[in-house]
Amino acid sequence: MKLISSLIFFLLFSLPHSSPTPTKSRKRLQIHKPCKTLTFYFHDIIFNGHNSKNATSAIVGTPPWGNTTTLAKQNHFGDLVVFDDPITLDNNLHSHPIGRAQGFYIYDKKEIFTSWLAFSFVFNSTRHKGTINFAGADPLMNKTRDISVIGGTGDFFMTRGLATLSTDAFEGEVYFRLRVEINLYECW
Amino acid sequence: MKLISSLIFFLLFSLPHSSPTPTKSRKRLQIHKPCKTLTFYFHDIIFNGHNSKNATSAIVGTPPWGNTTTLAKQNHFGDLVVFDDPITLDNNLHSHPIGRAQGFYIYDKKEIFTSWLAFSFVFNSTRHKGTINFAGADPLMNKTRDISVIGGTGDFFMTRGLATLSTDAFEGEVYFRLRVEINLYECW
Amino acid sequence: MKLISSLIFFLLFSLPHSSPTPTKSRKRLQIHKPCKTLTFYFHDIIFNGHNSKNATSAIVGTPPWGNTTTLAKQNHFGDLVVFDDPITLDNNLHSHPIGRAQGFYIYDKKEIFTSWLAFSFVFNSTRHKGTINFAGADPLMNKTRDISVIGGTGDFFMTRGLATLSTDAFEGEVYFRLRVEINLYECW
Repeated sequence: MKLISSLIFFLLFSLPHSSPTPTKSRKRLQIHKPCKTLTFYFHDIIFNGHNSKNATSAIVGTPPWGNTTTLAKQNHFGDLVVFDDPITLDNNLHSHPIGRAQGFYIYDKKEIFTSWLAFSFVFNSTRHKGTINFAGADPLMNKTRDISVIGGTGDFFMTRGLATLSTDAFEGEVYFRLRVEINLYECW
Repeated sequence: MKLISSLIFFLLFSLPHSSPTPTKSRKRLQIHKPCKTLTFYFHDIIFNGHNSKNATSAIVGTPPWGNTTTLAKQNHFGDLVVFDDPITLDNNLHSHPIGRAQGFYIYDKKEIFTSWLAFSFVFNSTRHKGTINFAGADPLMNKTRDISVIGGTGDFFMTRGLATLSTDAFEGEVYFRLRVEINLYECW
Repeated sequence: MKLISSLIFFLLFSLPHSSPTPTKSRKRLQIHKPCKTLTFYFHDIIFNGHNSKNATSAIVGTPPWGNTTTLAKQNHFGDLVVFDDPITLDNNLHSHPIGRAQGFYIYDKKEIFTSWLAFSFVFNSTRHKGTINFAGADPLMNKTRDISVIGGTGDFFMTRGLATLSTDAFEGEVYFRLRVEINLYECW
């Protein structure tokens, strides 16, 4: 009987802990490890009235003091830009795009450059199929900025996580390139 | 003892697997089954300067080459449309609406029709109370398109899932009807 | 053997229930308890052409019948407003802001005041660091309205939950103050 008791005792206390119920805190001491990490670049070329061939984005909303071919004064506050930007694996604008970054951003502060964005990565390559959806604040003057991965489809079904943005390059007020490191913490 | 060992062995290996911790992958081999499936239609009538009585949406942002009463050239790239569309259970515009689809979409590609949308289904009927929130890319030329259910309230408290959109009908550039099959994978 | 059977029976049925797999419903009978509750106020002052010093938001998209310095007729339907509003702990506009509410809202119904919003709370104080991201329908005429917390960063890493908005005060069509009670149900 002693052996059996021991075995049962072992059974009871060696069972994997069930995950907490959704209604309780999942606060944990350990650092969270992503279930998937991906790095991409995307390239935004704002239409300025003269570059329709190359432009990948356009100003479609402006504050009272702005217009749709020039980013507005006061740190572009109020400008709303719609984009369809190529996604590349390296930082070369001319590399073969493996998808498109599609959505919009708004400049939302008068005193400094800062923006808010919501967009999708739309993949359709042998490497990735499906979409990743993002939303969050992008304080451009910070070296890195975290936004939320709020969902996904296809290869990225139901995913959630964080994306860390950094400005990899910019030229005047027409071209900029963002580096995006995506860390997914919910993979289905 | 052999019987007991067998029983304990059975116990150990027949226990339901606890779900992985949030920091680990939830990749699974089986097909995911939704915890709830719902199908609706919604109806969008764009204001064109002459249909103010029936219109349910309006162009409120346009690219430099556009205006707010006609969808812009270049596949409407840059047009931003705000909507308050009736939701019906069948594909008849005149059926009793059981809620409203409220939010916006942007046309975001020059070469083909494609859009990005963020909106809520706002229900207030005996059948459903509460809201479901959506965001994602909508490549209109595809027969079906998946977007994310990013949250919900009321009957749909904290829900997540996918919505599959398909264009059920359209008339010129003023009316279109979307079929939405909602599959929820997180129900609280 | 009887004792052992009893023990094994006990073991089988007294084990903590593992949480359901992501593919199954998490419907529960109990009321959900938030893992964190926070209350804030934020203050929106719309630019009207004369208050550039104090304004925290601007109309950047309008319907065909509107303009960017006055909220449009038909219950402001179609107006799109970008904001960078101070967040305070009490209902005093002049209290020290502990962060900024940044994003946009659209008025989206002709018949009554109702809006849809997507924004972030951006904190950078000793009390809170990081961001909380929100999206949802805001039927302004209701005393309280629930929107979704769709993600977070920093102190609010990966969080989800609900935010209950109520209009705490408004003055004409230029100033309004929202009270936000945030209830988080997923805390990492």
